[in-house]
Amino acid sequence: MPKLKMGEDHAACNAVTGVDMKVLVLTGMPGSGKSEAVKVAEEMGIPIQRMGDMVREMVRAKGFELNRANLASVANSERKRLGPDIWAKRTVRVISRSPIVVIDGARSLAEVDYFRKELGTSLLVLAVHSSPWTRWQRISKRHREDDPRTFGELRERDGQELRWGLGDIIATADMMLLNEGSKGHLRGQMRHLLLDLSGRPPATGPPAETTFTEVVER
Amino acid sequence: MPKLKMGEDHAACNAVTGVDMKVLVLTGMPGSGKSEAVKVAEEMGIPIQRMGDMVREMVRAKGFELNRANLASVANSERKRLGPDIWAKRTVRVISRSPIVVIDGARSLAEVDYFRKELGTSLLVLAVHSSPWTRWQRISKRHREDDPRTFGELRERDGQELRWGLGDIIATADMMLLNEGSKGHLRGQMRHLLLDLSGRPPATGPPAETTFTEVVER
Repeated sequence: MPKLKMGEDHAACNAVTGVDMKVLVLTGMPGSGKSEAVKVAEEMGIPIQRMGDMVREMVRAKGFELNRANLASVANSERKRLGPDIWAKRTVRVISRSPIVVIDGARSLAEVDYFRKELGTSLLVLAVHSSPWTRWQRISKRHREDDPRTFGELRERDGQELRWGLGDIIATADMMLLNEGSKGHLRGQMRHLLLDLSGRPPATGPPAETTFTEVVER
Repeated sequence: MPKLKMGEDHAACNAVTGVDMKVLVLTGMPGSGKSEAVKVAEEMGIPIQRMGDMVREMVRAKGFELNRANLASVANSERKRLGPDIWAKRTVRVISRSPIVVIDGARSLAEVDYFRKELGTSLLVLAVHSSPWTRWQRISKRHREDDPRTFGELRERDGQELRWGLGDIIATADMMLLNEGSKGHLRGQMRHLLLDLSGRPPATGPPAETTFTEVVER
């Protein structure tokens, strides 16, 4: 994996960490309820940094149609060209300054490690988990165009999502919301967590310099 | 990935599935409390199939010292030589026939997929999750010889565990126990789950033929 130069990015990020923000990296498998959890944060006035928005912008700028295949292809070719944490690097450059910020769309520990290194130890990873069968029941009801149409297709989609290391982020999450019940229950849990977080002192745990990057490289 | 021949193994497994057992694949990161959960099952008289025991046996048979490095090296060289699901294949050959069986030690979706294919749809994956910081606090107290000695070393160990795909199993688990509290709380949850499971009809969800193997191949 190419080591990325830091230079001016690093300076910009120090300015960011100077604000003493809490950064919540929100993650989950398709249909887990992650988007609903992001919505709760948004409704509470917390800025959301959507990594996917940058990819969408680039797909549009290249004149490609906005669909899953093109989004994945552009995201991946940028990772291959500029390193597995390129989208994290670009996210840090534009991140909002606010007491709490939510980052949506991290796909690998390389990205989380970059956030941790640049945004300090107040970074927390929150995973929303539902069983594959629960996720399938939700997805089969929502009728989105790009969604899997069978349980087997959901397993394949899962595989695509896991390929970059999403499972590694979920397995090492700092917090986990289980979402097997109603939307209301998840919303309640999420609101509770964000209220708790906004009153919480900065985390004392993970040393910022520790990274997974070398050991999980595939 | 080499496709493994099924032949006589397949026949043997059909005999196994004929018993209509529920198979619980138990998984978790180091220090998550997985071993404690296995212990609860054991105390309830549920047979435990420890995939690690077969690896230990092979390390001993080769005359190597029994340590983490040798165990990992033998396990991995067998996976490279005979396919990523070789330990799953060997487990299915010797699995106990019982209404509920716990399999401990799965490391990748290739293994889980093999179990699902051979042991039918009554297979459930249970993950025990704790945050890295909670896991570190537990590990730093238990003083096992091979354990990480710093939080950074735990991150590295995590990376080694994730390398074969442990995170993929956890992210797609059918059930998740959160273990941020006391041992007693985890034990209670696990007992409850096993009692519930022993009275539960076979799962209707996942079709047995669906596998992740192709899409998550690295």
